[in-house]
Amino acid sequence: MGPGPSNIHPRVLAAMAQPTIGHLDPAFIDLMDEIKVLLQYAFQTENAATFPLSAPGSAGMEACFANLVEPGDKVIVCQNGVFGGRMKENVERCGGIPVMVEDEWGCAVDLEKVEAALGTHPDAKILAFVHAETSTGVESDARALADLAIQHDCLTLVDTVTSLGGSPVLVDEWELDAVYSGSQKCLSCAPGLSPLTFSERALEKVKNRRSKVQSWFMDLNLIMGYWGKGRRRAYHHTAPVNALFGLHEALLMLREEGLENAWDRHLHNHLVLRDGLASLGIEFLVRKDWRLPQLNVVRVPEALNDASVRADLLKYYNLEIGGGLGPLAGDVWRIGLMGYSSRPENILLCVGALESMLKTCSALATVHKTLENQ
Amino acid sequence: MGPGPSNIHPRVLAAMAQPTIGHLDPAFIDLMDEIKVLLQYAFQTENAATFPLSAPGSAGMEACFANLVEPGDKVIVCQNGVFGGRMKENVERCGGIPVMVEDEWGCAVDLEKVEAALGTHPDAKILAFVHAETSTGVESDARALADLAIQHDCLTLVDTVTSLGGSPVLVDEWELDAVYSGSQKCLSCAPGLSPLTFSERALEKVKNRRSKVQSWFMDLNLIMGYWGKGRRRAYHHTAPVNALFGLHEALLMLREEGLENAWDRHLHNHLVLRDGLASLGIEFLVRKDWRLPQLNVVRVPEALNDASVRADLLKYYNLEIGGGLGPLAGDVWRIGLMGYSSRPENILLCVGALESMLKTCSALATVHKTLENQ
Repeated sequence: MGPGPSNIHPRVLAAMAQPTIGHLDPAFIDLMDEIKVLLQYAFQTENAATFPLSAPGSAGMEACFANLVEPGDKVIVCQNGVFGGRMKENVERCGGIPVMVEDEWGCAVDLEKVEAALGTHPDAKILAFVHAETSTGVESDARALADLAIQHDCLTLVDTVTSLGGSPVLVDEWELDAVYSGSQKCLSCAPGLSPLTFSERALEKVKNRRSKVQSWFMDLNLIMGYWGKGRRRAYHHTAPVNALFGLHEALLMLREEGLENAWDRHLHNHLVLRDGLASLGIEFLVRKDWRLPQLNVVRVPEALNDASVRADLLKYYNLEIGGGLGPLAGDVWRIGLMGYSSRPENILLCVGALESMLKTCSALATVHKTLENQ
Repeated sequence: MGPGPSNIHPRVLAAMAQPTIGHLDPAFIDLMDEIKVLLQYAFQTENAATFPLSAPGSAGMEACFANLVEPGDKVIVCQNGVFGGRMKENVERCGGIPVMVEDEWGCAVDLEKVEAALGTHPDAKILAFVHAETSTGVESDARALADLAIQHDCLTLVDTVTSLGGSPVLVDEWELDAVYSGSQKCLSCAPGLSPLTFSERALEKVKNRRSKVQSWFMDLNLIMGYWGKGRRRAYHHTAPVNALFGLHEALLMLREEGLENAWDRHLHNHLVLRDGLASLGIEFLVRKDWRLPQLNVVRVPEALNDASVRADLLKYYNLEIGGGLGPLAGDVWRIGLMGYSSRPENILLCVGALESMLKTCSALATVHKTLENQ
């Protein structure tokens, strides 16, 4: 129940343990085609360039920037947590010029600030933002941000690592252009793959580049020779076959459940957890309408020590919850209810464990007080 | 029995199917430490910077170039197959200047040509070459090439994707500087990870860079914050936990067998396959002293059609062998005997299957002749 990786369903684990086959085997090409269709469903898109990058979400982020940003390109980057900062790093390493729009950690991206930045920088080519901030548990309004980008003739580059499969990500309806995610959050697959999707507008920018993409491994032109249409696939790299067996199974399970049902399940379980935590007096960091149902970021009760509680949860309950990052380190917990981890028994385990610790803590406090008064 | 991925041992498949745990879980940190020690053994090195990159071998290649090559750096690149060409691409995309030393596909890298290039380009910073060419089944003399590089004050950047675990790779004894490999060849793990090792000399060059590494995901300075020493690991990316469970088990099995025994097994099985193929009149592309025991590249008999034989092997025998690449397409087969695939029963299956096809082919030729003579 940390901020990811989430637990993996036994069906997905079993799929990964199948004997490997060649990355150009006809049966594997069929599997790749199915993965693409299933990912299009997950992203709610008809984008032809929809496939999993053979590397973790952080590489997926870099693949988006490396393909879309050319030296000198101005990119408006929204930062309201860890991953906006990482976006800035990526823009700079691609030779682009980041224009930062900063919001407090725990707040959503402020639409007015973004609109002002787009107005001040009419030469900006890309608006980059994090839909679901894994470091703070905040959802920003991707649809509204994309609308602003379109009004100012910018492409959007969007992090959906924590949102995909857990809450609505409507790539086509919202007209997002370059979107990356991760396999290990609400898709409940093993970490190591990054689902990507690119709109026609994004592909156009890649095709019209003046310079080659600086990364050979992440060059979309080369990758699409392997993941593209038709039976004829050009060898690019050796695909992580077993990891893709797992992703295929995880996406199949999402399809079987139905996206809307998965979103409902994440929302419902979030409300149950919220009520349980509230009864312990544990408060959310994030205001109600910005909360991500799949990632509950709450304040560490004053009576408890962050690190020792997390260590004890792991040791005695075999339960992982995440600590805070950056300015929130020590002050918050990040409790994930993602994918296969989003189940009532986990909520009961977590709330029960925290309750027992709060009681222990009161008892200890009583002992301390008694000792002090002696 | 293609050029990789090789078959995966059931122990490794079972390891990958274990429930995932957090990438910062203390138990996982212990596992990372064990992987590093086991990889040091596989590479025969004491390099502290020895770890698996969370992406396939092609990304491992790029990680070596992206860290070591700075804009304007001259790099001598030996090309005697597909992967030397890919090295050139990488040098260029890092802003370096490649100086090509070319040898025919199927030949080893020519030491005299390399020495001449080093003499002509005293400002070269790096000598890059492929130890075991997966496209041709050729081994080049890594020790001698490294000696030349040292004489000319160059770092070496070496591809050991197909050699590691199958034939000697002595990183410290040969004084190699930046070495990458793959998980899916003689280590017989799932594809998707790239074992890397960097000497102190290589790290020195990375530390003294004038510019940042252009890739955030592959930046050695950041990766070592996660894979480095001590209990305190900085989050960089979410490690592919289950893939690393598999690599750990595969490396453990290599350690149990013993490196020298693994090399002997690969060599012995190669000789058995060679004799079997010789009895069918199938000849090797590569001259005897350059042959890789783990990758047997042979000429397609004139009586047989490359593509249809490979399709039939897959369809009727569930057996994959590789076709030729580049100028060798259609003319050669690449028969792997790598890791867990290097076993007598596989040799019997492969030789038996090819024998049956050659006989079928003679029978068909008889029928054709009869028809023609009617």
